[in-house]
Amino acid sequence: MSLFTEKFDGYASRFIGILEDFCATLDKCEPEILSKSLQYSLKIGGKRIRPVLMYTFADLLNVEKEKVDNFALALEMIHTYSLIHDDMPEMDNDDFRRGKPSNHKVFGAANALLAGDGLLNTAYSVLFDECRKGVEYISAASFICDCAGIYGMIAGQSADLLHEHDENCSEKDLGFIYENKTAKLITAPIVVPAILSGSKYYSELNLLGYYLGLLFQITDDILDVEGDFKLLGKSIGKDKEAGKCTAVAVFGLHEAKLRADILTERCLKITEGLEGDVSFIKDLITFVRTRSD
Amino acid sequence: MSLFTEKFDGYASRFIGILEDFCATLDKCEPEILSKSLQYSLKIGGKRIRPVLMYTFADLLNVEKEKVDNFALALEMIHTYSLIHDDMPEMDNDDFRRGKPSNHKVFGAANALLAGDGLLNTAYSVLFDECRKGVEYISAASFICDCAGIYGMIAGQSADLLHEHDENCSEKDLGFIYENKTAKLITAPIVVPAILSGSKYYSELNLLGYYLGLLFQITDDILDVEGDFKLLGKSIGKDKEAGKCTAVAVFGLHEAKLRADILTERCLKITEGLEGDVSFIKDLITFVRTRSD
Repeated sequence: MSLFTEKFDGYASRFIGILEDFCATLDKCEPEILSKSLQYSLKIGGKRIRPVLMYTFADLLNVEKEKVDNFALALEMIHTYSLIHDDMPEMDNDDFRRGKPSNHKVFGAANALLAGDGLLNTAYSVLFDECRKGVEYISAASFICDCAGIYGMIAGQSADLLHEHDENCSEKDLGFIYENKTAKLITAPIVVPAILSGSKYYSELNLLGYYLGLLFQITDDILDVEGDFKLLGKSIGKDKEAGKCTAVAVFGLHEAKLRADILTERCLKITEGLEGDVSFIKDLITFVRTRSD
Repeated sequence: MSLFTEKFDGYASRFIGILEDFCATLDKCEPEILSKSLQYSLKIGGKRIRPVLMYTFADLLNVEKEKVDNFALALEMIHTYSLIHDDMPEMDNDDFRRGKPSNHKVFGAANALLAGDGLLNTAYSVLFDECRKGVEYISAASFICDCAGIYGMIAGQSADLLHEHDENCSEKDLGFIYENKTAKLITAPIVVPAILSGSKYYSELNLLGYYLGLLFQITDDILDVEGDFKLLGKSIGKDKEAGKCTAVAVFGLHEAKLRADILTERCLKITEGLEGDVSFIKDLITFVRTRSD
């Protein structure tokens, strides 16, 4: 196992421990179908890239990992709610997520709708508890909420819908979708440790999150064309089928890859300007570019 | 106009002013369809009973109304999101709400899903800003979040679904649904002023909210049988059609009304134990029992 994989898995394992402890508390949630549908999507896996980013930047900025555990938990719940709602029939109508049936395929659309609502609400319940710890915790919670909301992820999802089958989808439209739908929720785990550390590198890390989020979404789009269902755990070719406004649709596959390379370089350059051991962060950026899932 | 109506309308008008100011800020939200769908459901009307309750109890406990404005706003956004999602095809499939087409009938199911998500998120964005004002504001925000969440309203909605067409739906099941689906979000505006005032009458007001919430839901069920579409602004007879577990289904119409009367008496009794001028609160309780919309 490479040093990179070891460190990545270490962060992911820490998070999975936190998540499993939290899921155990959900056993008391009634009715049982609600409890099960919440836990199903939380436990289904995924790379846990947002929690890994949160711990990575906490370490870089000397913020104790205990301080960000609940922020990582809340953020992953927000990410998971968005996937449940995105997969629903009226949205992307995806039957698979991470190689398993989507929440609505297992529990039905009504229960999936409530599971999504429930995870979003529970994320904020966790964050209100954090708010009691001090003003920087309130700022961090508020930052996550803004990234997820109507000037963040939800705006991006809405624009994504709006430009389905839009042959005139422009570079500007694409930029709006990518920045909001994806980059905001990738920026959150990078900037939350900065807020908790007294805003060290606040603007640099916002910019890094923005570029890394764009990179993450472009590679997602490339994988939707070139990826392997078995590795990816979700249907392939869905973007084209749904007429989505993606980097591949707007620029073509070749230019999308070149743009991914440019974004990778920008991320690496910002990272090199940060004090401390940034080797893992650089590997993580490369991983986002070269991943197969 | 009666004194009761005058006071009710005064509170409602104050709230509508707050709401309209907030909606004006949503004009900058993009894409336009998101901005419009959020504002459509917020502005569509309704009795604004939760904001009216919030101001009523703020006045009783000598909490300045300015202090609860944003809590009333957030609560009404949470209530509105729950109506948008409840009306969706996979849930109650209601084409009308407050006499107008439901959000999904106007904007489509995918946009309605996002409008609901957006309002829930925006409610919490408003509440995180409140958290900066002090620890009692954090407690009040956290209380609202818990009332709305998986141990509150969402649990009630889930149980409501679970017991559709359940001929064995018991009094206990009904109690769980009513307490969570409805009473928690009626308790919130009564208890938030108590929290902001240093927890005066905390347990009494929790109990009052519980009984008033049950009363509100029973009268809703009665109106679904005996109400007038024009006054009510939503379809009639939907509960029976959908096989819902309601007080009318479990106890029959006659006993449901007797139970509503008992709950009215309990609410009035608690109210009489509170210091100050409670005449409006007593009228409000009677209004909840005798309303036609």
